[in-house]
Amino acid sequence: MKNKCDVIKDLLQSKQISFPKEEVLVFAPSNIALVKYWGKRDTELNLPQTSSLSVTIPKKGANTRLKLIDAEQDHIILNGEALDAKHPFAIKAADYLTLFRPITKRFYQVNSDSNIPIAAGLASSASGFAALVMALNELHQWQLGLEEQSILARMGSGSACRSFWPGFVEWHKGQNDDGMDSHGEPFNVPWPDLCLGVSLVSEQIKPVSSRDGMNRTTQTSPFYPAWPNKVEQDLENIKQAIYDKNFHRFGQVVESNALAMHATMMSAWPPILYWLPETVEHMHRVWQLRQQGIGIYFTQDAGPNLKFLFMKQQIGDIQKQFPMLEVVALFSKQ
Amino acid sequence: MKNKCDVIKDLLQSKQISFPKEEVLVFAPSNIALVKYWGKRDTELNLPQTSSLSVTIPKKGANTRLKLIDAEQDHIILNGEALDAKHPFAIKAADYLTLFRPITKRFYQVNSDSNIPIAAGLASSASGFAALVMALNELHQWQLGLEEQSILARMGSGSACRSFWPGFVEWHKGQNDDGMDSHGEPFNVPWPDLCLGVSLVSEQIKPVSSRDGMNRTTQTSPFYPAWPNKVEQDLENIKQAIYDKNFHRFGQVVESNALAMHATMMSAWPPILYWLPETVEHMHRVWQLRQQGIGIYFTQDAGPNLKFLFMKQQIGDIQKQFPMLEVVALFSKQ
Repeated sequence: MKNKCDVIKDLLQSKQISFPKEEVLVFAPSNIALVKYWGKRDTELNLPQTSSLSVTIPKKGANTRLKLIDAEQDHIILNGEALDAKHPFAIKAADYLTLFRPITKRFYQVNSDSNIPIAAGLASSASGFAALVMALNELHQWQLGLEEQSILARMGSGSACRSFWPGFVEWHKGQNDDGMDSHGEPFNVPWPDLCLGVSLVSEQIKPVSSRDGMNRTTQTSPFYPAWPNKVEQDLENIKQAIYDKNFHRFGQVVESNALAMHATMMSAWPPILYWLPETVEHMHRVWQLRQQGIGIYFTQDAGPNLKFLFMKQQIGDIQKQFPMLEVVALFSKQ
Repeated sequence: MKNKCDVIKDLLQSKQISFPKEEVLVFAPSNIALVKYWGKRDTELNLPQTSSLSVTIPKKGANTRLKLIDAEQDHIILNGEALDAKHPFAIKAADYLTLFRPITKRFYQVNSDSNIPIAAGLASSASGFAALVMALNELHQWQLGLEEQSILARMGSGSACRSFWPGFVEWHKGQNDDGMDSHGEPFNVPWPDLCLGVSLVSEQIKPVSSRDGMNRTTQTSPFYPAWPNKVEQDLENIKQAIYDKNFHRFGQVVESNALAMHATMMSAWPPILYWLPETVEHMHRVWQLRQQGIGIYFTQDAGPNLKFLFMKQQIGDIQKQFPMLEVVALFSKQ
């Protein structure tokens, strides 16, 4: 079995190692899974039990500045704050950079600004790790392809492997033990009027990390064994709905997939519930809107915030119910 | 296949039919399922997919006065209010009495006082139908045994078949097509200090009836196929925990069974969520108490209210967090 360092060596061995740049600045967007990733077939390499499908959020994500430093350890700066080496995010970033050390032999300053709340189920780690990989690739001028970068990012945080393309992206679970076939791929069917709305319920750090939540769910939920089959059907249905521009079918898959994922969590022991009272209130408001004939569906990740999906034409009606809603046009051309 | 009327005829044919009394007054308690009934194998006779186990709530339930009247239809009075014949509860009660009409040939006045909120997931229909059967049996002096009455009540409302005994009661799912082996049976292991707490979140009528919720769940939830096996294991474990007086094991089964039932509902389509924001708030409060070392677990039926289970010794600590809590000693001797 290969470990992460082996995979990195394999990926980089054919690359021409030129002089690194002094400093680079990259941006990686966040992405929201519409058919979720929940559960690993390999915890070392972050290989998933199922494929998944996301949509990239334009302009929301991480701006990361990376430079080489003469120091005995990496320096991590997050949203302007220099983190103590024992801060959980500093540990995660440094552990990840350490995987590259056998090749790069150097320490880094990572200065990352995220314009989304950290660890509130808005996939901040996806954009964070995607940006870190993009930055490493540029700094060292490895000229890795996007799929290769996707594989590297996956080993930092699974969902990060979907942040390398705009629009819909499918992460193929892959078959291989080394995960070289487990990476993102764009699903190139744009949907010009599709919008995402985020209504922040809480920016609290989540009480159970996704990683721990997944492991507990796969180990203890009596419903987890039925999850992979559910995902497979949902993937088929959502792709068809996207081709057909059938928004209600699309929304049904998205919402039912998210609720089913949370159902596997709450049937784990101890139960995992990322919901807050406001989460439930927002769900009921969404269902009320639907009863009024307004096309809105929600999804929810490992945090209390709901994300809404709707067509541009409905923005006005929806903002009446959710005045604080931040709306993102997912396929805006600029 | 037998229908309800056939079963009633079978049960009553061997009974000596004497003159009915003029009027009777009975009380039937409510019961709370600790391992839940969710899903039917036969919708005509209310035969369940799984066995279940409840605890009877002393003194909470229905006081029902039944008398024969000279009229062309049944008169239903609920909590002092004469119901219109089109009221859903009047329809339910009259439909049920109609099943007996081929034998009794008479109409009734049913005057039922419930000291628990109606249809808020506190099993009001369980005590209502159990009381109605007890009253019919007494009025007509059929001298049916408790198991026979349990079978009759089950055909009105499944969970009513568990309301004929104090303490823990198991409802055997049975094997027979006519359901003559599907009735309650006392599980005679008392637990003197066990308490139930009810904290009312809402007395609203639930938006989806248990009957409709069950049917939608069995038909559309991808997790429902795993539910019967979960229940079977939970039944085995809870009985062992009751024998052993192992409160934490007991509580774990109770809470995980309830959450798993709700997980099957929310993964149905359209999703079924009996939760309100306060439901989630109360869950988090329960988990906080447990983190402080206080033994409290919850269960939840097809409504927003949680019911807590704890030992008498913890009442003080728990009432600090839930000042409005109504506490019932489940095995109190009087």
